[in-house]
Amino acid sequence: MRTTSVGVIRIVTKGPGDVSGLMAMIGAGAIDPREILAILGKTEGNGGVNDFTREYAVAALCTALAPQLSLSPEEVEQRIAFVMSGGTEGVLSPHITVFTRREVERPPAGLSGKRLSIGMAHTRDFLPEELGRAAQIAETAAAVRAAMADAGITDPADVHFVQIKCPLLTSDRVEAASARGHKTATTSAYGSMAYSRGASALGVAVALGETGSDISDEDVLRRYDLFSKVASTSAGIELMHNVVIVLGNSAASVSEFEIGHAVMSDAIDAAAVTSALKSVGLGVAPQAEAGRELVNIFAKAEASPDGSVRGFRHTMLEDTDISSTRHARAAVGGLIAGLAGTGAVYVSGGAEHQGPAGGGPVAVIARLSD
Amino acid sequence: MRTTSVGVIRIVTKGPGDVSGLMAMIGAGAIDPREILAILGKTEGNGGVNDFTREYAVAALCTALAPQLSLSPEEVEQRIAFVMSGGTEGVLSPHITVFTRREVERPPAGLSGKRLSIGMAHTRDFLPEELGRAAQIAETAAAVRAAMADAGITDPADVHFVQIKCPLLTSDRVEAASARGHKTATTSAYGSMAYSRGASALGVAVALGETGSDISDEDVLRRYDLFSKVASTSAGIELMHNVVIVLGNSAASVSEFEIGHAVMSDAIDAAAVTSALKSVGLGVAPQAEAGRELVNIFAKAEASPDGSVRGFRHTMLEDTDISSTRHARAAVGGLIAGLAGTGAVYVSGGAEHQGPAGGGPVAVIARLSD
Amino acid sequence: MRTTSVGVIRIVTKGPGDVSGLMAMIGAGAIDPREILAILGKTEGNGGVNDFTREYAVAALCTALAPQLSLSPEEVEQRIAFVMSGGTEGVLSPHITVFTRREVERPPAGLSGKRLSIGMAHTRDFLPEELGRAAQIAETAAAVRAAMADAGITDPADVHFVQIKCPLLTSDRVEAASARGHKTATTSAYGSMAYSRGASALGVAVALGETGSDISDEDVLRRYDLFSKVASTSAGIELMHNVVIVLGNSAASVSEFEIGHAVMSDAIDAAAVTSALKSVGLGVAPQAEAGRELVNIFAKAEASPDGSVRGFRHTMLEDTDISSTRHARAAVGGLIAGLAGTGAVYVSGGAEHQGPAGGGPVAVIARLSD
Amino acid sequence: MRTTSVGVIRIVTKGPGDVSGLMAMIGAGAIDPREILAILGKTEGNGGVNDFTREYAVAALCTALAPQLSLSPEEVEQRIAFVMSGGTEGVLSPHITVFTRREVERPPAGLSGKRLSIGMAHTRDFLPEELGRAAQIAETAAAVRAAMADAGITDPADVHFVQIKCPLLTSDRVEAASARGHKTATTSAYGSMAYSRGASALGVAVALGETGSDISDEDVLRRYDLFSKVASTSAGIELMHNVVIVLGNSAASVSEFEIGHAVMSDAIDAAAVTSALKSVGLGVAPQAEAGRELVNIFAKAEASPDGSVRGFRHTMLEDTDISSTRHARAAVGGLIAGLAGTGAVYVSGGAEHQGPAGGGPVAVIARLSD
Repeated sequence: MRTTSVGVIRIVTKGPGDVSGLMAMIGAGAIDPREILAILGKTEGNGGVNDFTREYAVAALCTALAPQLSLSPEEVEQRIAFVMSGGTEGVLSPHITVFTRREVERPPAGLSGKRLSIGMAHTRDFLPEELGRAAQIAETAAAVRAAMADAGITDPADVHFVQIKCPLLTSDRVEAASARGHKTATTSAYGSMAYSRGASALGVAVALGETGSDISDEDVLRRYDLFSKVASTSAGIELMHNVVIVLGNSAASVSEFEIGHAVMSDAIDAAAVTSALKSVGLGVAPQAEAGRELVNIFAKAEASPDGSVRGFRHTMLEDTDISSTRHARAAVGGLIAGLAGTGAVYVSGGAEHQGPAGGGPVAVIARLSD
Repeated sequence: MRTTSVGVIRIVTKGPGDVSGLMAMIGAGAIDPREILAILGKTEGNGGVNDFTREYAVAALCTALAPQLSLSPEEVEQRIAFVMSGGTEGVLSPHITVFTRREVERPPAGLSGKRLSIGMAHTRDFLPEELGRAAQIAETAAAVRAAMADAGITDPADVHFVQIKCPLLTSDRVEAASARGHKTATTSAYGSMAYSRGASALGVAVALGETGSDISDEDVLRRYDLFSKVASTSAGIELMHNVVIVLGNSAASVSEFEIGHAVMSDAIDAAAVTSALKSVGLGVAPQAEAGRELVNIFAKAEASPDGSVRGFRHTMLEDTDISSTRHARAAVGGLIAGLAGTGAVYVSGGAEHQGPAGGGPVAVIARLSD
Repeated sequence: MRTTSVGVIRIVTKGPGDVSGLMAMIGAGAIDPREILAILGKTEGNGGVNDFTREYAVAALCTALAPQLSLSPEEVEQRIAFVMSGGTEGVLSPHITVFTRREVERPPAGLSGKRLSIGMAHTRDFLPEELGRAAQIAETAAAVRAAMADAGITDPADVHFVQIKCPLLTSDRVEAASARGHKTATTSAYGSMAYSRGASALGVAVALGETGSDISDEDVLRRYDLFSKVASTSAGIELMHNVVIVLGNSAASVSEFEIGHAVMSDAIDAAAVTSALKSVGLGVAPQAEAGRELVNIFAKAEASPDGSVRGFRHTMLEDTDISSTRHARAAVGGLIAGLAGTGAVYVSGGAEHQGPAGGGPVAVIARLSD
Repeated sequence: MRTTSVGVIRIVTKGPGDVSGLMAMIGAGAIDPREILAILGKTEGNGGVNDFTREYAVAALCTALAPQLSLSPEEVEQRIAFVMSGGTEGVLSPHITVFTRREVERPPAGLSGKRLSIGMAHTRDFLPEELGRAAQIAETAAAVRAAMADAGITDPADVHFVQIKCPLLTSDRVEAASARGHKTATTSAYGSMAYSRGASALGVAVALGETGSDISDEDVLRRYDLFSKVASTSAGIELMHNVVIVLGNSAASVSEFEIGHAVMSDAIDAAAVTSALKSVGLGVAPQAEAGRELVNIFAKAEASPDGSVRGFRHTMLEDTDISSTRHARAAVGGLIAGLAGTGAVYVSGGAEHQGPAGGGPVAVIARLSD
């Protein structure tokens, strides 16, 4: 019995502080602000440590949504999962994707197949010394299972994208652990982001059976043969727990949308992008398919750690002028935009244990107009 | 009667000063240095005003080839056309492409179809005030016709890529013109590069009949509806004339290679890249075609001047941290590398009048193993 | 008869959205929000077109001050003059400087000498075609005189820093002018910022008698021998008029502060910085002066347009990786911080007609504890 | 008895490949190429991993000097110590400083005081696992003592600047150590540069008695309270041993030059720069001293690891757009240039154990015209 409906709307923005598109849709009744579960966005910053466009975008959204929800901006930030990915290099175009969910009383008749569903869960707060280690992996795995249940998904094969927000270490947090006699995985704030992202991705892999569950602390950021094909993780300073968003297809959903995915084995894996498009009935641009429309693509990009792509040297990791994550987003964004026919896609950097080294997951959501 | 043979060899480099690959091939007899006509390369720099990797690469090549040719390094630079394009953003991989030409006495039997041919010519030295104006357009057009004749090509449809090196203005040159009572098109050295590239590209368009020949000074860098579909131009401080290299197919050539092209209408035009590959019998990666092998792809990239790609805003032109040319090469390089299956391709920035605004020419050379 | 008091407080920030320092001072009664006249700040961005930290900082301040003033955030932005300068390169440290003003009924006895005073005024809205031209110069000059009167300053020699916010052109504004049959000074948004800054600075020069008043449209951005020694101008998209803030010394002020200035003739003019410090009784760090304390320094920096500093070539203008404005702020910031003993100083880029070419004004505010 | 003479000539360059200034001086007899001992230079690159201007400059110098010395370019590189520091941020101006040395038969009469002397030595080749550890420290200390002897200096107080070129790790070198059963200090090439620079600087500190000699492997890059006040070290891929250049004053020298130094305790330590100038009889610009002329200043700069300068937060370490070494050189370069009156000074980045954390040595060479 189908009981929930999920909405996905991609809205272009004119700047990180621009909420006019979302507000217009709310004003027109196209989006009910009480149904908003999560907002994923691409903002104009550099995607690095000093990228303030992410927090600016979240602040602007919370301030704008607060009166709509009769909440304070701080309460809005607690209620809705905001995941902003900085960096719109090359042809990538700033935008947000709004995910909504509501209960349906009388499902439409004649709906066939599984449809897009979304589930959320979060872990308990972590201790600083747990980040990037087995505890974060195990707790994340449990949260992924809870989010799957929330989404009405039982088969791991129906999970196509798992977006996670996870904590990072600060010097205060490192010192707090030290005062209690514990060593953290790293003392570097920047380095801890990779540890937290990696352990979170491994938690997804464990939950979905993509790897065994006996992953040790030493495997994180070392055993790159262990990875999830659907994990996309992002570290932020504002929380100490993991927030898990599962996107998949479920027979319990009445939504108009379908999601599918593939795994790019490297940064130029056009075949994987094409395969992801095909998995939801879409062709490569400009070939339109009857009754199917692209909503958005979600992908991770990184410079391959071995310094080459299919045997040819790349220079991303040695560039002191441009961060390798910016290079990688620009290149992978160019490829995906070319095959999708649009630059308004979500390509995010930092893909530790998210797809194979140098590659990453690519998920596609299509709207079915049947 | 077929009389010339053309060779094309792509050689990876380990740095802008690395000539070991070329020297090894000369040592092994695979390349006769006396037959080298031109070397096009991608180097690691930023492709901007302060990119010294281009002149470093040329200096290293001239120094290495000098004893081979019993010439001074300066004479080598006069004899061989060196065109270095800085910027290997994203998955682009540093390499050089060596073009050789020799006369053949007894052409092989059973060769069918037109084959890759190469021709060169140059204009007279320009006066500073002629750069970016009708004189440069007309002289370039004449040189393109001369290079076509040198290549044994009569039909403009057989021309698939015209690479041009052209001069730029310096403050000395601007002053020299001023002292004679003439105003130059611009007084900015950086700005003059665009003028010279644009006028040179329009010269190609005139020679090939892609536009009428009545192009006025005012049309340069303004009438972007006037463009060549095969021009690729690059400005350098070291010369005051245009060097023109025509690549096309000719019945007079016995080479193993074939060239074709298409025009990208924008930076995400995957269909054009696919079409260029198909024009020489190649498929999209990883689909290999029997008897055909990709040698290299030559393309121009630029951020569309109107600030959007297929209706979605891009941020390349407003980025104070990364030059728009770097963004554009990374994105277009990602797309072409994905479809070609390799990042060792020649994607160059600055595409004034070279393809439509925001797009650019894309040419492919294949080796035929029949 | 002394009637007004002016306060100047420098508050460090932890990020562009950090208002905690200001809120704490308001909470503690150290600042009365109703007395705030202007806030000048240095934020972490790149200072270029895509620097969103400036608008983020203003948005955060307006949102935080709105309930304090029983106004909407938009009304706060109208009431208080916010001038955010992006770019804390090198040792520069992010901070805001809050200027307050209030009437005093009974001035303290025994106060000698002129003290810091602040005055504000604004011009009428400009037509797009007036920007960067004589109309903007003349109107600005009138507003400077009005702001001087507001500050209780009659002698131009008592004016030591004039901060101006001025408009820029957008494509809409250019088109509006064009539709009425008028051409704007430039059609480039980026280029219009320099025109507007330059004309505004010339307006200051006219008002203070630093130049004659017969400045023509052609002189803007060309006659760099015409400049103001105290102007600091900044262009923003959010207004169509000029906001003028005059800082000087006045016998009508009872403030604890004094302001002085000097003019850097080039980017390494240590003597000018020392002279500006001395003008308010301060020595070079670490030499403390009894009864005098540095509050802040306000300076403009730019790469000298002729490409050299005291005969030695600089590379700021040819750097495709780092904008010349970032280079200039880092270098001048390093010098001023060294002489002042602190990196929390206001060094801003883009100094057209603000000091001589390659140099700029440097003003110092000291607190007198006598 | 004075027996050697040392020459120091600063020559501006127009680009990293420009050798015309040096060649002109050789042509005019002002420099005897056979007497050249070392060349230190500032080049236009970013000073990072992909800065090719350093090797380009060395290649150009070797190629130009080879016929002068009847050597191959490779032999020139062995004979002369080339130390190129990339990065001319802000007002820093590209140049080289040529050090020459020759024996004198009849010393001029009436020379008083110690004069500039230069000595060189090198260590044995290191094993990869020795880099950044006690072995490198001890061997460097021995080489410093040998170079002091070569310079005719016995008192450590007469040593004012020790420039060292040291090796770095590559993946090949790491693997070679691993194959022999040894672990290197780090597996990262970039990271090994800091280890090698740090251990080399500690070697100087040991040799000069600035620290005890019982420094353990664990102290490198951790005990920042251990440092040399005169060390300046630079890692390069082209060698496996340390080259040590000692600059000091000696009674055995008849040179026209004198050297002195001070230590900047942080990046804004103007007093230290002033003190270094005074130590050789020079004043702060523009105060000229009779009979004394500035030749060059040699300094190290770095972003203070604790994220602040004199209590105020800096943003250099969190900037994903500009490397902290570029920020630091720009700021310190601005300060030194301001006090020295010229941007043609040698300010180099990466100051591990070279001066206190966030600070660094600053040495000054003056010419005495008495």
